[in-house]
Parts: sequence; structure tokens; C-alpha cells
Amino acid sequence: MKFCSQCGNTVTLSQIPGDTVRRFYCAHCETVHYQNPKIIVGCLAEKDGKILLCKRAIEPRIGKWGIPAGYLENGETIEEGAVRETFEESNGVVAGLKLQSIYNLPHVNQVYIYFTAKLVSWDFTPNSETSEAALFSPDEIPWDELAFTSNKFALEKFLSDEKSENDNVFVGTYDLNHRQF
Amino acid sequence: MKFCSQCGNTVTLSQIPGDTVRRFYCAHCETVHYQNPKIIVGCLAEKDGKILLCKRAIEPRIGKWGIPAGYLENGETIEEGAVRETFEESNGVVAGLKLQSIYNLPHVNQVYIYFTAKLVSWDFTPNSETSEAALFSPDEIPWDELAFTSNKFALEKFLSDEKSENDNVFVGTYDLNHRQF
Repeated sequence: MKFCSQCGNTVTLSQIPGDTVRRFYCAHCETVHYQNPKIIVGCLAEKDGKILLCKRAIEPRIGKWGIPAGYLENGETIEEGAVRETFEESNGVVAGLKLQSIYNLPHVNQVYIYFTAKLVSWDFTPNSETSEAALFSPDEIPWDELAFTSNKFALEKFLSDEKSENDNVFVGTYDLNHRQF
Repeated sequence: MKFCSQCGNTVTLSQIPGDTVRRFYCAHCETVHYQNPKIIVGCLAEKDGKILLCKRAIEPRIGKWGIPAGYLENGETIEEGAVRETFEESNGVVAGLKLQSIYNLPHVNQVYIYFTAKLVSWDFTPNSETSEAALFSPDEIPWDELAFTSNKFALEKFLSDEKSENDNVFVGTYDLNHRQF
């Protein structure tokens, strides 16, 4: 950030009195420009014991498989965002959402929130975000071809949870240089 | 948003090809300025069957009681943010965090994430954010003096969950004009 989005003057990274971290600050109009993590929402959409995954048609990780998910938009609930993203990426209509996992990626300022859901209908045609979509049984999950560590975390927990017949919500963090909470 | 934070030229609210909503866009440097919901994290800190609440020394809702919570910062996990906010507002040190609830406020682009936690130590002195802090037993909760609906939601669920001896995670949404998911 170099310029104030309110008045167009230059901003500086400044220590605001009473604040704990430095912020981009405009001395001209006195606006503090906060920057905070973003939420990514998606669905582990299940049908007949199989899970819907989408092959990415866009960077990053083009050609890799992922749980349909994307950035939560202003004005949305996390459930609404997860339903929308699943539809946008796969044409899949889901229902019966249940919170399944939260995964921290603090080094890229992201928090993933996944739901389990029932895949009600599904009429996939390739689109700008997804080149291919398919239902995978637990022993067919393409573990080495997953796009993101959040996918691996959510799928592993989902499968272990199914086995134990529980209905847990899992919280995890990307292990950057063995970073642990 | 009026100016591009990258190059200082004016931005316009534009329909980007392939996107679903309009974005602030700089035609000069071609930057798309995404705006997304923010995460607020906090702790239902418990000690001897009582819950820690803080009386707000700042707007909004100055003088009202709230669960210690605040904006998640870049670089933090949700657990780290909840621990930090609890300490900043109350001087309380917490441990043993468990995800408790998520509360959507889509009309103000916020998602609250609360944890239950054990209050390990607590040495409160008034600070810039909090004028008073106290432990409340379930029948002492100042329901009519709570700062935010997310506080009410989390506390109600916490107390009902304790009664049922469950360890659930709750998801709720602020009911704006009977808005329901």
C-alpha cells in the first residue's frame, strides 16, 4: 500500500498511539488503513459416500484437485459463501451444511472454513475456474494431486471422523517451519 | 474507496469479466481492490464456573459488557488472536482453547469466532479499551447490558451447552429484518 484510498495522498507505515502493530496511515486525512486476514469458505460435498473435488483451471495450483472453495464476500454469511463457491466451481447444489473444519494459514493471512454438505444436484460443465470435477470415494482421493494443505487437512479429518461416527469440528494450522500453536 | 492504494489514481466500481460482483478497479495500473469480511476472535474465559466479561471503554457500545474479542491480525492464527485480545482487554491469560461458536454479521461484513478457555491468571487494571472487568456466574450475566448480539449468542449457547454437558460448536447469524440462512 502506497497511497490513501480515501484522499490519494501517500501513506506511511506508522505506529498509532495505543495500537500494537504498525498500520498504513494517511497523515493528510488521518485514515488508518487496517489490513486483516481473509476468509475462504467451501464445502465437502458428499453424494453416495463420495466427495466432490474440482480440478483447478486457474493459478495458483492449476491442474490440481481441490475442495470447492473461495473468498467470502462482503454481505455474505459463511454458509452462503460456501454454497455459492461450490456452485460457481462445480455447478453443484448443496444443502444441509455443517461446520467441519477451520484451517489457519497465518503466513498468507488466510483462514479456511469448510462445511460438510449433501450434494443435491450436480450438472458439471467446465468453466473458467474448474476444468474437471468428479466424485471420489475415500480410497480414490488424489492425495498427491491436492491443491492446498487445507484440502488435505479437511479430507483427512473428514474421513477419520466418518470412521469414528462423530460429528466434530477441527481446527488446524499450516506448519510453516514447524510452526505450532 | 476513491483512489488506488498502489498508484494513487482514481478507482471505479467496475464489473470485472468473469467476476460475480463489482469491484473497485484501477484502470491505470489494472489493480482490482477486493474487499472482504473481517474476523473477530475472542475467548469465553472461565474460572471457577464464572465467565470473564469486560466493560467497554471505547465506542461502539461504550459502557456495555462484552466477551473479550477483537480483529484478527495478519500473521496470526485464530487461537493466537483470541489469546492476544483476551490479554489486551482484561490482562487475562488463557489456555486450553476450544472452538465454541461462529457468528455471522453479514450486514457489517464481520464473522465472530469464539473459543472457550480456562482463565489461568488475571490481574486487571483499567486500560484504554476496558474500564472494568469481572467474573460472572451464569445467573449474574448482565444480559441487558451486553455490547453485541454475538456476545448474547455465544453466552446463551455456552450456558445451554454446559447444562447438556456437550462440547458443541455453534454457528449463528444476526437476524437483520428476520434474515435467516
